[in-house]
Amino acid sequence: SIDGQRLWSSLMAMAEIGPTANGGSCRLALSEEDAAGRRLLIEWCEAIGCTLRVDRVGNLFIRRPGKRDDLDPVATGSHLDTQPKGGRFDGILGVLAGLEVFRTLHDQGIVTERPLELVVWTNEEGSRFAPAMVASGAFAGEFSEEYTLARTDRDGVTLGQALAACGFAGEMPVGEPRLASFFELHIEQGPVLEEENEAIGVVTGVQGMRWFDVTLRGQPAHAGPTPMTYRRDALAAAARLIDRLQAHALADTSGGTKVTVGCLEIDSPSRNVIPGEVRLTMDLRHVVEAELDALEARFDRELAALTEAFGVETASERIWASPVVNFDAGCIDAVERAARAQGVAYRRMMSGAGHDAVYVSRVAPTSMIFIPCRDGISHNEAEYATPEHCALGTQVLLEAMLERANT
Amino acid sequence: SIDGQRLWSSLMAMAEIGPTANGGSCRLALSEEDAAGRRLLIEWCEAIGCTLRVDRVGNLFIRRPGKRDDLDPVATGSHLDTQPKGGRFDGILGVLAGLEVFRTLHDQGIVTERPLELVVWTNEEGSRFAPAMVASGAFAGEFSEEYTLARTDRDGVTLGQALAACGFAGEMPVGEPRLASFFELHIEQGPVLEEENEAIGVVTGVQGMRWFDVTLRGQPAHAGPTPMTYRRDALAAAARLIDRLQAHALADTSGGTKVTVGCLEIDSPSRNVIPGEVRLTMDLRHVVEAELDALEARFDRELAALTEAFGVETASERIWASPVVNFDAGCIDAVERAARAQGVAYRRMMSGAGHDAVYVSRVAPTSMIFIPCRDGISHNEAEYATPEHCALGTQVLLEAMLERANT
Ligand SMILES: NC(=O)NCCC(=O)O
Ligand SMILES: NC(=O)NCCC(=O)O
Repeated sequence: SIDGQRLWSSLMAMAEIGPTANGGSCRLALSEEDAAGRRLLIEWCEAIGCTLRVDRVGNLFIRRPGKRDDLDPVATGSHLDTQPKGGRFDGILGVLAGLEVFRTLHDQGIVTERPLELVVWTNEEGSRFAPAMVASGAFAGEFSEEYTLARTDRDGVTLGQALAACGFAGEMPVGEPRLASFFELHIEQGPVLEEENEAIGVVTGVQGMRWFDVTLRGQPAHAGPTPMTYRRDALAAAARLIDRLQAHALADTSGGTKVTVGCLEIDSPSRNVIPGEVRLTMDLRHVVEAELDALEARFDRELAALTEAFGVETASERIWASPVVNFDAGCIDAVERAARAQGVAYRRMMSGAGHDAVYVSRVAPTSMIFIPCRDGISHNEAEYATPEHCALGTQVLLEAMLERANT
Repeated sequence: SIDGQRLWSSLMAMAEIGPTANGGSCRLALSEEDAAGRRLLIEWCEAIGCTLRVDRVGNLFIRRPGKRDDLDPVATGSHLDTQPKGGRFDGILGVLAGLEVFRTLHDQGIVTERPLELVVWTNEEGSRFAPAMVASGAFAGEFSEEYTLARTDRDGVTLGQALAACGFAGEMPVGEPRLASFFELHIEQGPVLEEENEAIGVVTGVQGMRWFDVTLRGQPAHAGPTPMTYRRDALAAAARLIDRLQAHALADTSGGTKVTVGCLEIDSPSRNVIPGEVRLTMDLRHVVEAELDALEARFDRELAALTEAFGVETASERIWASPVVNFDAGCIDAVERAARAQGVAYRRMMSGAGHDAVYVSRVAPTSMIFIPCRDGISHNEAEYATPEHCALGTQVLLEAMLERANT
């Protein structure tokens, strides 16, 4: 059984690298802090006899040998990079839980049939280099090595340059090694487990997501002398669109539909000027691909209706789509058995957020384990998961990995 | 009868002071450009025997003597300052029309009973120093001299310092001279006259206006894992508020109700984060004060309803209120008679925008004359009024002033 105290100590030690004012961490991908975090992990792993390989996009593969090193490894992992004002758990827990699994096996002198692999994926957050999850995507063949290395940060530094600068430009071809299976432990980043008093989420897949950039063009005009009936108010049109789609999502009592407008900007805003142009983002999600298609069609219809209702021209570009992911039944079952063995309340659930496991699942049997996080908050210095839940998730991870590594 | 060609030439000459790239003007209040514009006007007026007085907030009073200089003058005027990318007509027309009236009387050797006064009000636009119309407000007793002189621009320069620097810190006490009546010619800044094919607006008053700063506070959360029913989405709440109030305003078939949200900002916006806080501005207007009260009450109710519907805290501060203004019946009638005498289509109408005449009307019988402007556009380099309409408005001004100055 894993050592929850030791796990917590390693989480808190990692959080000291790039600490922020309010108790979070700042380790932007491939920054000096991110590199220092990686070096600390490597030091810990080498101390228990593990070996490191680094691929050409900087993904770390840390191997614990098995009895049959000709077999593909059972892998776990996540990411060590954070948001600018990030928390201490998002990504980090999944990596340090893997370390804790290795340390536990080491202490007890257990050698599994298959080798085990702890993976640290480069630049998951997408905060320094867009898109997010780019290096697990490269591993799975979604992005080419060239594309990945050419991503630039806001100072014009490429991901490739940053890798070289911080000493993590590896030699191993991207896509190696083949993984027998992959498990990722993560905080839920939502409120469901906490609200429902459940300790473990057995993650069966990831909802589909589509991102859109929307522009509404009306006519700027003076707020005072312009009669309501003459107006072509781009913000009024945006408000109608948002209100209608929110109501539509709320009306889906299954809870499968999610609609979020995260950004909205008025061109040249002024208190007494009717907004002439509004740009907004639309994030549509659903756990069923066909329903996501229907949701997008609904969005298109609501958008088109604005032209008649508000006299605005509309333009919408789909800039990203991630299809619904259904994880491997065998990996899901292994997680469920491990959760049940703990005697705690758990639920099967879809992940609402994207994770490295989304891409990895394309090339290896995969599933995920969620634990509750306080108030569902993440990407925030206030992010918190209890030591008990961290330990519990890690125990579930250990048992799921052992099951897959010994059969 | 006035000389439309001469009027147009003076408008175009003034536009050359602080010209902008796309055919507009930039003469921010009390800038070097604004001062140069004032000097040009003064030169023109002194050439026809007028005399200048400047009050302590920089308002220019340019007098054409009458037969009875013991009587209060009949006045006209507007402002010469512009928005940063302003047009060539907003304010300027009202000043140069007064010059054209003086020149016409000068050419024809006409001396009125009462003296005439051309007034240039300082800082009408409010673009450099807030609030707008501050110096006509000071003239009318709405703002103290100290308050007015202490207004600061974004570089920390006070209005008083700017007056001294550009040579327009006058000696005359603010509020002098008393005016027998005041007429202001202005572009409509809205689309009604153009759409209705009418050449003159006989302005009977100015609608009441109230400005609010609104904050909606919910909870930021990840767009993916947060179920719709758990959300406290500040933007969804804002959208509901805007949509409801827009619908309410449109349902008023009298056209008296106007609702505009000109600014809306999300705190720390991110595409996949549910907005936790939104700040927006609300501009409510109505031509009837009691209806404006009812509109504000409706706004308060819709705002309060958001707490229940979206779980957001709401705060709203009324930062400015300008009551409904009803101009002087005698001045309105004088304008209407002058308009009718031209044989053109005209309408009695309320002004949708605030003007210096709003404040002046508190201390002198006042009305305004509107002419159409292209597409209702103002505060914009594309602002345009035809030479014919400018001349027509000036002719109406001349006749209204003569009627009041000779009786
Ligand atoms: N975990 C996470 O924040 N992924 C980013 C993609 C998403 O918005 O789900
Ligand atoms: N004319 C003008 O733009 N005045 C400013 C106050 C208002 O918004 O009506």
